[in-house]
Amino acid sequence: MTAFPLDVETARRMLPDLAGLDDAALLHRYARAVWSCLVEPGDGDAGRLVAALGATVALREVITGARDDAAADAAEIDRRAYGAALRRWRPRLSEDTVRVALAAAARTGTRLLVPDDDLWPERLDDLGPHAPLCLWVRGDPADLRRSRPAIAIVGARAATGYGEHVAMELSGELSADGAVVVSGGAYGIDGAAHRAALAVGGVTAALLAGGVDRPYPAGHARLLERIADAGVLAAEVPCGSTPTKWRFLQRNRLIAALADAVVVVEAGARSGSLNTASHASTLGRPLGAVPGPVTSAASAGCHRMLREQDARCIRDADDVRELAGLAMRAAPAAAGDRTDERTRVRDALSARVGRTPAQLASQAGMAPEEVAEILGLLSLEGSADLGHDGWRLAPARR
Amino acid sequence: MTAFPLDVETARRMLPDLAGLDDAALLHRYARAVWSCLVEPGDGDAGRLVAALGATVALREVITGARDDAAADAAEIDRRAYGAALRRWRPRLSEDTVRVALAAAARTGTRLLVPDDDLWPERLDDLGPHAPLCLWVRGDPADLRRSRPAIAIVGARAATGYGEHVAMELSGELSADGAVVVSGGAYGIDGAAHRAALAVGGVTAALLAGGVDRPYPAGHARLLERIADAGVLAAEVPCGSTPTKWRFLQRNRLIAALADAVVVVEAGARSGSLNTASHASTLGRPLGAVPGPVTSAASAGCHRMLREQDARCIRDADDVRELAGLAMRAAPAAAGDRTDERTRVRDALSARVGRTPAQLASQAGMAPEEVAEILGLLSLEGSADLGHDGWRLAPARR
Repeated sequence: MTAFPLDVETARRMLPDLAGLDDAALLHRYARAVWSCLVEPGDGDAGRLVAALGATVALREVITGARDDAAADAAEIDRRAYGAALRRWRPRLSEDTVRVALAAAARTGTRLLVPDDDLWPERLDDLGPHAPLCLWVRGDPADLRRSRPAIAIVGARAATGYGEHVAMELSGELSADGAVVVSGGAYGIDGAAHRAALAVGGVTAALLAGGVDRPYPAGHARLLERIADAGVLAAEVPCGSTPTKWRFLQRNRLIAALADAVVVVEAGARSGSLNTASHASTLGRPLGAVPGPVTSAASAGCHRMLREQDARCIRDADDVRELAGLAMRAAPAAAGDRTDERTRVRDALSARVGRTPAQLASQAGMAPEEVAEILGLLSLEGSADLGHDGWRLAPARR
Repeated sequence: MTAFPLDVETARRMLPDLAGLDDAALLHRYARAVWSCLVEPGDGDAGRLVAALGATVALREVITGARDDAAADAAEIDRRAYGAALRRWRPRLSEDTVRVALAAAARTGTRLLVPDDDLWPERLDDLGPHAPLCLWVRGDPADLRRSRPAIAIVGARAATGYGEHVAMELSGELSADGAVVVSGGAYGIDGAAHRAALAVGGVTAALLAGGVDRPYPAGHARLLERIADAGVLAAEVPCGSTPTKWRFLQRNRLIAALADAVVVVEAGARSGSLNTASHASTLGRPLGAVPGPVTSAASAGCHRMLREQDARCIRDADDVRELAGLAMRAAPAAAGDRTDERTRVRDALSARVGRTPAQLASQAGMAPEEVAEILGLLSLEGSADLGHDGWRLAPARR
């Protein structure tokens, strides 16, 4: 019925970047790429079948299309459920779809990662049969490996100034300390977390519900490009995929899985962040929630987490470190907000003359990389601007 | 050495209000009143000695002044510690002091309560040897009995508008539901809690660190008088006593002991409310803390309680009811803030003509007592005023 090509020649043509691999490895990667075009995220039947038979053999089963009871038994899938799964996957078997997706990946420098790869983020394996079959990545996927501490900071799109402020403080300090800040690229808390990490020269990862070639939301196109450049942009759905409600919910499990701890900064009573929090609980990831005024609807979800999900109350970056059990560089004693350093850099800035970080470092008696971090924070809070001739003190705001 | 009179004649002269009691009962009460003049609050040695020998015999031991090893052994007090205790108590044995204290009590209508009394607040017995030897009370002590639910609402003197707002909401709703709101009479959260209870016609109790005849703080003199009239004003120290740091700390144990649950609304990092919270934990009283912005120093203590003391996160009166396990009248479903009733009473109010609660009740189609409660809430939030001709709509605030 379906004439779908699954051979080394096709794989080599479709994945020109991987042409150097041996035939089996190449075919395996191609099969996983195809799988990601067939299934919706989190399809446990697909995960079990691929785990039992290998991606290539499993895909051949789908192409053949006959309900193979031996395959179902091997994957420990109920036989009737297996039939339903085949009927779910086969309609998407389209050479065109795969070609278009892989071409978009090649065009945008999107890399295909599979579990055998050295750079595969091994934390994802904690998802078991619900782990993604592959990952589509822009940026350096090494930053998602377990060797680097990672903190998920997520929250409401309809965040308040308070929530965004706290998200920035946490993200700025933790990423300056070397943690990867993982989030979902959304407006509000997610965006604040990503921006603060970038501002201090840290690494941040955005997990998308759609293809990494089509930044979503559109208003974050520039931010997501910056993340692709300086951090990691990743999705389990292939390029060209649209984000759907289901994909958002499943994307949340990737955020939880990729982090050593999950912190929710603000969340309304029905926020998607609560879904991320549930994934964190299921995965055994330490869970934290930042409280806020009980009169603020934007904190209602966080307070519910504190009451019902046994989330830890998070006040500052030190609390997140404790939550994650991280042995990251401790903040200078009694100066978690870097008041002293801010003051010194602010003193070195002029409102009339632009100065380079090196000039400022010399004037403030601080290391240039430290000045760069603080400039990021000052820029975030609006008290320093980068102009054509360097950094200046921003005019006082009313 | 000390000629201190401990006889029925003296007792009858010193406690004229109790002259009707039989000799033994009268002498017993007089002895406890004297004891309260001798010891600092929470003196476990005094508690143990009085429990072992009875207040009268124990006091005779103090008057005699000889270290009686048999008495020490009976009270399970280390013999040397007993000697030290006698040296601590005897210098305060002064007939004048007792006479002045009892005269001040009689003058201010302050009632003496001892553990044998029907009206003794039996929750205090949970303090064991650290229970007060007597209680000096203005107002109706029946309100402090276990038969009536009691909630302690305490917090920072340096409260924010947010904290006072939440304290008022909690106290207003819980006391309108029939709970006694117990607090410490201080500025800030305590005052807001007392005021809201009074405003809805509820009962509130202020536990003082000094004598109930000398309202402290002075700025709350009028509020404390209103509490004595409509609620309960109580202290374990006799009239005339000044509040000291130690007495404040010990007063906090009474607040915790007298409540079914303790809620801290705002507390700085070193707030006295944290001491009340510790007493609550020690006594096994359920403990709640209202979160606030992590950027607010006034909520720092509450957040620490959520992290370290296993306090429950309190968002509203329903959370307090759950905390206390109270079967109080549930708030109308989905209208915890009584929006509908407020609207109806507000609609019935006029800005130009004063109306009585009965008139308003008829116009709003509500029960008069319900209207009275809502008027209290409206008055608290500043949208209704009580004038000489009744209730009016307050002019809109800017």
